[in-house]
Amino acid sequence: MAENDSTRVAVNGYGVIGKRVADAIAAQDDMELSGVADITGDWRAHIVKHKGFQLYAASDGHASPMQDAGLEIAGVLDELLEQSDIVVDCTPKRIAAKNVELYRRRGIKFIVHGGEAHDVTGHSFVAEANYDSAVDRNSTRVVSCNTTSIVRTLSALKRAGLLRRARGTLLRRATDPWESHLGGIMNTLVPEATIPSHQGPDTQSVDPDLDVVTMAVKVPQTLAHLHYWTVQLTRNVEEEEVLNALRTSSRIALVRAGDGLNAINAIKEMMADLSRPYDSLYEVAVWEDMLKVHGDELFYAYMVDNQAIVIPETIDAIRALTGTIKDGPESIAKTDAALDIGLAAIGARLAAQGNR
Amino acid sequence: MAENDSTRVAVNGYGVIGKRVADAIAAQDDMELSGVADITGDWRAHIVKHKGFQLYAASDGHASPMQDAGLEIAGVLDELLEQSDIVVDCTPKRIAAKNVELYRRRGIKFIVHGGEAHDVTGHSFVAEANYDSAVDRNSTRVVSCNTTSIVRTLSALKRAGLLRRARGTLLRRATDPWESHLGGIMNTLVPEATIPSHQGPDTQSVDPDLDVVTMAVKVPQTLAHLHYWTVQLTRNVEEEEVLNALRTSSRIALVRAGDGLNAINAIKEMMADLSRPYDSLYEVAVWEDMLKVHGDELFYAYMVDNQAIVIPETIDAIRALTGTIKDGPESIAKTDAALDIGLAAIGARLAAQGNR
Repeated sequence: MAENDSTRVAVNGYGVIGKRVADAIAAQDDMELSGVADITGDWRAHIVKHKGFQLYAASDGHASPMQDAGLEIAGVLDELLEQSDIVVDCTPKRIAAKNVELYRRRGIKFIVHGGEAHDVTGHSFVAEANYDSAVDRNSTRVVSCNTTSIVRTLSALKRAGLLRRARGTLLRRATDPWESHLGGIMNTLVPEATIPSHQGPDTQSVDPDLDVVTMAVKVPQTLAHLHYWTVQLTRNVEEEEVLNALRTSSRIALVRAGDGLNAINAIKEMMADLSRPYDSLYEVAVWEDMLKVHGDELFYAYMVDNQAIVIPETIDAIRALTGTIKDGPESIAKTDAALDIGLAAIGARLAAQGNR
Repeated sequence: MAENDSTRVAVNGYGVIGKRVADAIAAQDDMELSGVADITGDWRAHIVKHKGFQLYAASDGHASPMQDAGLEIAGVLDELLEQSDIVVDCTPKRIAAKNVELYRRRGIKFIVHGGEAHDVTGHSFVAEANYDSAVDRNSTRVVSCNTTSIVRTLSALKRAGLLRRARGTLLRRATDPWESHLGGIMNTLVPEATIPSHQGPDTQSVDPDLDVVTMAVKVPQTLAHLHYWTVQLTRNVEEEEVLNALRTSSRIALVRAGDGLNAINAIKEMMADLSRPYDSLYEVAVWEDMLKVHGDELFYAYMVDNQAIVIPETIDAIRALTGTIKDGPESIAKTDAALDIGLAAIGARLAAQGNR
């Protein structure tokens, strides 16, 4: 695709998600990063410049302090939006809702993330589940990391006609690594005060047909979330049939504890070994050798890299809203190729090496 | 009961469980601690003497080093057994199985704990579930902390005719506080390699009728285990009916996150405030205000103090095996009174104070 046919994408907010989205946009051959807007003049903004991205101030008021910090500012957010086809909002929870007013005034398409309510856009997005309904829309919400993982896995079971209902327990990481100096829980467990937790209803914002109930608890570590699921199937099946259903998703990686991937830190280290940016696990990592079927009941556990899993979804959402690719599987395959997604290949290699 | 009618109880192994069992025996008016056997001459053995308990060497070979450490030894294990009606084995996993040969040769009744296999005694014990079948037996196994909590809670639901089947996710503490300098996991999560985990079948060693499947994961904290359960009920009920079923057990404490007991460290601190030895939570602490019923499905979470929960069970097992009290509820009530078990009263006080 010629340079001038590229979709010009703005990223507003260069935090945990924004920085990863920016890199992922830069890695696509049908998009260009028109610029990054933020409010900080600290080291994070200098990284934006170091990467060669255009840096914008989120508002006039933020421009001077950023310039005083020695940063060359290309302009303010308003100007960035003028030069963009779409904006991905990666600002903190509840800030995005205010930005949305600006996006609407400007008439620019926009994507918000899972911290915002479904009503902000009226559409909640997971590529494998509902890409079609996002095509040519003005906006969508890429749902949260946990919800994304739930929709991916349960959609795979649903497509295979296996899913009746699912009940999950979510172990949520205490805080993100980057923010862990700001405080997090230590040597304790903190249950979410309400059962069911919000992820179940949030899953239904993508697919109202999914019968899902979740419970959640905060645990004292920073690497990733971990889910345990009990699923009522529609009928008695063999484990292989379930695994084959999960294999239909390129964004579900079957991993094996028996290969030494027996803890979340081991999987994270493998991502570093693969030279993925930020050691990102874009896939839902389901432990294949733990997964068990008893009659018509299915039990499994998986890891969710909360900082990474929504990145490919965001790239797909850009294509869906702008309508540059109207076919979900086509966009997914393109994103996967650009980000080197698909751990199945690694699992196959391990198998070929006789490590199983 | 006159002093010379007391049951003379030996404790073999003064570790995490043994020290708590010894204190609990000393707190009963129908038992006396005939002595404690161990192999160590370090500070822990000096604590035994400081408490005024008789200290024995586990074998001849251990006697000299203990004496060299300045400890006055009353004799060796063999001699302790001679002066006892029953022995509670609190030695580490797999050591007990060897001791059992000695106990049988001596013809002394014995109790082992959950680290041993069911077959070692042929009977697995939880007071509220199967006290009767332990009466006058030669031996029993007080099941593990997790299994004890499962049997207590599911038995309460079963007694009320509410239980069809239960599926649980167990968050296991990384190590005991006392042993945490020896290593434990940090900033990660380690799933048990096999689903289902062993606690489900272990529960059936107490009550084969319980339809239960468990999954387990090790988490980086030392305070307690935390369980999340999804239970299929026999019919649609109101939450209050479930709570009333749980209230039939004095060893299930209903606590409220809304009272500030919203994490396991808060509950542990409350046990310290109650001046319980070792801040012990003997009860299964079920969060009353998190518990939810949807139609015929029940969801709840609870905390298990792995060092404390089996202590009252062990006291009851002593009475059952020796036949000094043949009625389960009578023994349970006696143990509860001696150990000040029954947090329901505290919950009621909180309610009376309008803290809800």
